[in-house]
Amino acid sequence: MENGSVKWKVKGKQQLNSASAVTVRAVRDAIMSKVSPTDERPIIPLGHGDPSHFPSFRTTCTAEEAIVDAVRSAKFHCYSSSVGILPARRAVAEYLSKDLPYRLSPDDVYMTIGCTQAIEIMLAVLSNPGANVLLPRPGYPYYEARAAFEHLEVRHFDLLPEKGWEVDLDSVEAIADENTVAMFIVNPGNPCGCVYTYEHLEKVAKLAKKLGIMVMADEVYDHLTFGNTPFVPMGVFGTIVPVVTVGSISKRWIVPGWRIGWLVTNDPKGILRKSGIIDCIVGYLNVSADPVTFVQGALPQILEKTKEDFFSKINGVMKEAANICYDRFKEIPYIDCPYKPEGSMFVMVKINLSLLEDIDNDMDFCLKVAKEESVIILPGCAVGMSNWLRITFAIEPSSLEDGLARIKAFCERHSKMQ
Amino acid sequence: MENGSVKWKVKGKQQLNSASAVTVRAVRDAIMSKVSPTDERPIIPLGHGDPSHFPSFRTTCTAEEAIVDAVRSAKFHCYSSSVGILPARRAVAEYLSKDLPYRLSPDDVYMTIGCTQAIEIMLAVLSNPGANVLLPRPGYPYYEARAAFEHLEVRHFDLLPEKGWEVDLDSVEAIADENTVAMFIVNPGNPCGCVYTYEHLEKVAKLAKKLGIMVMADEVYDHLTFGNTPFVPMGVFGTIVPVVTVGSISKRWIVPGWRIGWLVTNDPKGILRKSGIIDCIVGYLNVSADPVTFVQGALPQILEKTKEDFFSKINGVMKEAANICYDRFKEIPYIDCPYKPEGSMFVMVKINLSLLEDIDNDMDFCLKVAKEESVIILPGCAVGMSNWLRITFAIEPSSLEDGLARIKAFCERHSKMQ
Repeated sequence: MENGSVKWKVKGKQQLNSASAVTVRAVRDAIMSKVSPTDERPIIPLGHGDPSHFPSFRTTCTAEEAIVDAVRSAKFHCYSSSVGILPARRAVAEYLSKDLPYRLSPDDVYMTIGCTQAIEIMLAVLSNPGANVLLPRPGYPYYEARAAFEHLEVRHFDLLPEKGWEVDLDSVEAIADENTVAMFIVNPGNPCGCVYTYEHLEKVAKLAKKLGIMVMADEVYDHLTFGNTPFVPMGVFGTIVPVVTVGSISKRWIVPGWRIGWLVTNDPKGILRKSGIIDCIVGYLNVSADPVTFVQGALPQILEKTKEDFFSKINGVMKEAANICYDRFKEIPYIDCPYKPEGSMFVMVKINLSLLEDIDNDMDFCLKVAKEESVIILPGCAVGMSNWLRITFAIEPSSLEDGLARIKAFCERHSKMQ
Repeated sequence: MENGSVKWKVKGKQQLNSASAVTVRAVRDAIMSKVSPTDERPIIPLGHGDPSHFPSFRTTCTAEEAIVDAVRSAKFHCYSSSVGILPARRAVAEYLSKDLPYRLSPDDVYMTIGCTQAIEIMLAVLSNPGANVLLPRPGYPYYEARAAFEHLEVRHFDLLPEKGWEVDLDSVEAIADENTVAMFIVNPGNPCGCVYTYEHLEKVAKLAKKLGIMVMADEVYDHLTFGNTPFVPMGVFGTIVPVVTVGSISKRWIVPGWRIGWLVTNDPKGILRKSGIIDCIVGYLNVSADPVTFVQGALPQILEKTKEDFFSKINGVMKEAANICYDRFKEIPYIDCPYKPEGSMFVMVKINLSLLEDIDNDMDFCLKVAKEESVIILPGCAVGMSNWLRITFAIEPSSLEDGLARIKAFCERHSKMQ
């Protein structure tokens, strides 16, 4: 690195650059760049789980005013403690305990910078040399990117589209070995829109127990369900297997930019404590950035005062959008939607490449539909399933109709049948 | 790990636990635990750079109302982009450019979760195998903890108390080698309260250039100065040496819990870009949590609308507190204060152990003064200088007087002369 006569020795760590290339963010940015600046139609963002800009998904003023109150109180301008402030941890413990057969204590709760940091913490904590963890396929690639940072080996088990995207328990057992320490599930599911039954989660718990591994349940979409299956937290099975749950208000309250989440140990038998996991979580938090203190300060009011009608309104809009998505794809023979989503904001659909001309694969599909139709979709390869697409239906229903019509027109234009 | 018949394989990563043991937080917690519950006097917190609870240090309502406006606008409930939203980056570029001989662009600015995350990023980005970085002693141990996480070798150069805690340039040159990539400075200084002159910073820049290394300047205490030396940002010397500056509103606006900071590249010659540092910063941010979007949204209003009289009021209180601290220590022969602080919130003082009975070292001093006087002080060992103390003077002046009187009484009680 020469600059005049100086030989500069400074150099960036290459690994950081490559690890981040696989994230949803990076893929979506590449696709966004294809949108034609001359297309006067609005861009339809079906690649992104953030409906906060749409009028139908405006958060409740209860949440906004809780922030206003916390800031104006001037009680929360200070640093947080590293595990989070007690009122916030207590409120989360109360909130989650409603759905559990036992009561969580505030000491089971660690406040995090959204669910993102909670995932980061768990992957770091489990990354002993030689260890491996089991992740779902399709999945959420942030897990893979963070695991790469930590040099933690990941192995993938399958989710089964024909069985409502349930975990393929046989594939879990096939890939686990003596060095496996944890399996991860996402329920309600990103990217599949599935919601797991009590019975299925119990089977997951029993299998994990048999394998001697913990379960980490990403429940960031908790209660964002609108089908026949109610949300059941994995913590219900905490007496069978030690469970760490991660969650946040980002999705249910539609405020992903508020960056407040939690990591919760459902560990009534104290296995995580004995194994040193708890000490490591605390150790990691001691040298990490904290969530904003006044957002923590607002959390009790947000969790306790939000009215049921806000949740039912949001879930109603989600259901309407999911139905539109499912029904419209039924009318597009080039794309198969094997499962009607019951939760989260996403659905996985499969491209029938044999019916399409000049479309090489899912990435090619997404680049071309962005260029020709200004519709942004995440290719399945970004979530581990080539030639599938991940569609976000959580946008304004009228825009969703528009976007799906454009996808249909795109497919018809590229049809081999023409 | 046996639990009934199950052999649990889950295990926490030991390294996380030990790395965090050296942080200010961990040491302070250990000392706090010694405070006697029967002491009815208030605890005097001289260990902690967070005066936000004290009436004299209440932030400006301009800042609070900027948050209120941003939240109620509902424009910032969404995810941030990974580098931060443009209005925030533009506002920081404007704010910092006022003190520079060239103009920063918003593209030179990356929004971070306080200064904490900015430091984390730089240590990760520089942690190529075999590389080393140079840190000041005394310093801020968060650097050492994060470097340990990244397996990045650190070497320490000295700061010279007899020269206003200037960098010992000879010691920098003595410890640098072919694998050294960066030197770090903290100005205004934590834990020393020093403010470096233009001339000294220029010498630092020229030495770094000679060594072919970049400079990272922690300027979280920028403009928190109240002595004879004005604050000069290291970026002024960006044409001599590539500089990364990290900063935040935590200290100047007394809102450490708001967790908004920045990492800025002062790189007019493009050396950081060519060396891959910029790509790595972006890559790291792509897989990291972001600062709260509405706090970013409030930042332009905070940086542009805060009145000068708020800053002069805060700096006036800091100056008063620094003077109290310096004057009172002059009256305590058991403790030597070699330098009157001109900036930040801290001063380093040296314990004269030879005059004290039954005090083994700085840690012992701090544990005993916590137990006997309910005064919390950080031992010098936590910042790299045994048998010194780091004193925060940024507390309500009346409490500071109380705390220093208790320290004096403590020393007199433990004096050999009695």
